[in-house]
Amino acid sequence: MEYLKLNTGDQLPQLGYGFWKVDPQKIPSIVKQAVEAGYRHFDCACDYGNETEVGQGIASVLKEGQCQRDDLWLTSKLWNTFHAPEHVEEACKKTLHDLQVDQLDLYLIHFPISLKYVPIEKRYPPGWFFDPEAEHPKMETTPVPISETWQAMEELVDAGLVKNIGVSNFGTSLIRDLLSYARIRPAVLQIESHPYLTQEKLIRYCKEEEIAVTAFSPLGALSYLSLDMASQDDSVLTQPVVKAAAKQLGKTPAQIVLRWGVQRGTSIVPKTENPDRLIENISIFDFELTPGEMHAISSLNQNRRFNDPGDFAESAFNTFFPIYE
Amino acid sequence: MEYLKLNTGDQLPQLGYGFWKVDPQKIPSIVKQAVEAGYRHFDCACDYGNETEVGQGIASVLKEGQCQRDDLWLTSKLWNTFHAPEHVEEACKKTLHDLQVDQLDLYLIHFPISLKYVPIEKRYPPGWFFDPEAEHPKMETTPVPISETWQAMEELVDAGLVKNIGVSNFGTSLIRDLLSYARIRPAVLQIESHPYLTQEKLIRYCKEEEIAVTAFSPLGALSYLSLDMASQDDSVLTQPVVKAAAKQLGKTPAQIVLRWGVQRGTSIVPKTENPDRLIENISIFDFELTPGEMHAISSLNQNRRFNDPGDFAESAFNTFFPIYE
Repeated sequence: MEYLKLNTGDQLPQLGYGFWKVDPQKIPSIVKQAVEAGYRHFDCACDYGNETEVGQGIASVLKEGQCQRDDLWLTSKLWNTFHAPEHVEEACKKTLHDLQVDQLDLYLIHFPISLKYVPIEKRYPPGWFFDPEAEHPKMETTPVPISETWQAMEELVDAGLVKNIGVSNFGTSLIRDLLSYARIRPAVLQIESHPYLTQEKLIRYCKEEEIAVTAFSPLGALSYLSLDMASQDDSVLTQPVVKAAAKQLGKTPAQIVLRWGVQRGTSIVPKTENPDRLIENISIFDFELTPGEMHAISSLNQNRRFNDPGDFAESAFNTFFPIYE
Repeated sequence: MEYLKLNTGDQLPQLGYGFWKVDPQKIPSIVKQAVEAGYRHFDCACDYGNETEVGQGIASVLKEGQCQRDDLWLTSKLWNTFHAPEHVEEACKKTLHDLQVDQLDLYLIHFPISLKYVPIEKRYPPGWFFDPEAEHPKMETTPVPISETWQAMEELVDAGLVKNIGVSNFGTSLIRDLLSYARIRPAVLQIESHPYLTQEKLIRYCKEEEIAVTAFSPLGALSYLSLDMASQDDSVLTQPVVKAAAKQLGKTPAQIVLRWGVQRGTSIVPKTENPDRLIENISIFDFELTPGEMHAISSLNQNRRFNDPGDFAESAFNTFFPIYE
């Protein structure tokens, strides 16, 4: 395993396991297998709807002594319905409760989107719709300046509930504005990134500002097939340059693409429910891509974003909600 | 001439004349010709370095009675070095002085970029570099939250110095954040837009939020040829669909592209120093494109941005400064 040194001095394991869309029932055994395979970084979120099961898995590996709490890196994310300063701590404490820990290593603002508050006892996770039972469920926003949410995030650090704070799905201008008022700078930005969405300017900007970048969906389309948000044709794994590097190095195309992700300096959080893939995905620290291979894979960039609330408009969300344009 | 009704009730003439890069010496006669040709909307900015000459031209047409002040729509823009609240009024008053008027119709934050203050008496317009005489001139930023700049913009409205305020070169997430704390909502967003950069999500978002959109560089690459930031090959005017519509309607390709801009609901601010073109550019209100032509032109979109501080990095600015990613 390799690590990214954050601006707080903490060390973020470069490969993590991402729990988005992971079947809750399988999670306790996945956590056990992942820890056995060497995973120490777990990427969670309220919105993934499975933090209770992740917490059970973690409690179990800690109890069995497979690793210590200090060996683990736990990330979670503040959901959109909790942006109002008075709800930030409540949301964080719910996550801590579900994960069965008393401190997060990293807590991120999940989206630069503030939705109407839904009480935890009413519905959890709250999801995207204020009233999912409505005839035409819609997202309902509530205006909360990001500066106010960020200040509440900083207070979580003061209170010792989280060690590091950061943001997700933010772009350069929003980060620059945040940096103008932040008392505690974001340690990490988490964004979609893969060879079809290389985000070079954003990643370079973060590097200059000493913000580490975690790439979600590091394999690209693969994460979106089950959601009908991508097709097999969108896969980067069949690209000749990826297949050639895989053949050359005796690795799988997925390993080549994941290696590209860590070798360019991002941390990555691939997901799989397949025990063999779990091991395959972490076995990327014993080889290197050549500068030529790195460049060729980066050149696959198409600015192709799979996870864009601005595209969900007419499909899943019944709501037009662009954030990247 | 057609108009866009702003959220303040004011009427923005849909076609304006943009003074970016216009030779100061030619300006007084251009203003006179433009007013004769029917232009009433003038798009200025501190940074264009020619507001004094625009002011002379305006004073002259008003004196000669070609039109009244109330017939004119004057836009200007707060430069990056004046973002700190204590410098906003100073910058606005300098523009009012140069334009020889006591109120602007619209004042925009030019970029979501806050640069180090340069006193007016030291250098005006201040430009992008803190010290242009330095061996390696660089942009130097200073952290000012956009919320603080916006509050100072609102105070210009309170003081009667400007009628409407807005922003330029902002994207959806930054606007959404601004809307969460704005006491006076932005009336206008000005952005680069043309058939190669249609910005459909951003324009739709603004429509839903009742923010009018002004497109600069409505002819695309044409504005960037003289800056070596585009080549003739980048021109949208040679696209078959544009040429076909021009032939069909007995118009020039430029008129087709400008018509597309107003017909889709944006205001546009083309520039020309050529008296014939001045008339050509405004002669777009006596014909319509068919829905099929509109769609075909919109389909030329390539998300191709010519004016991007994030690209100037290694060329003009010696500074990496992405804002759109």
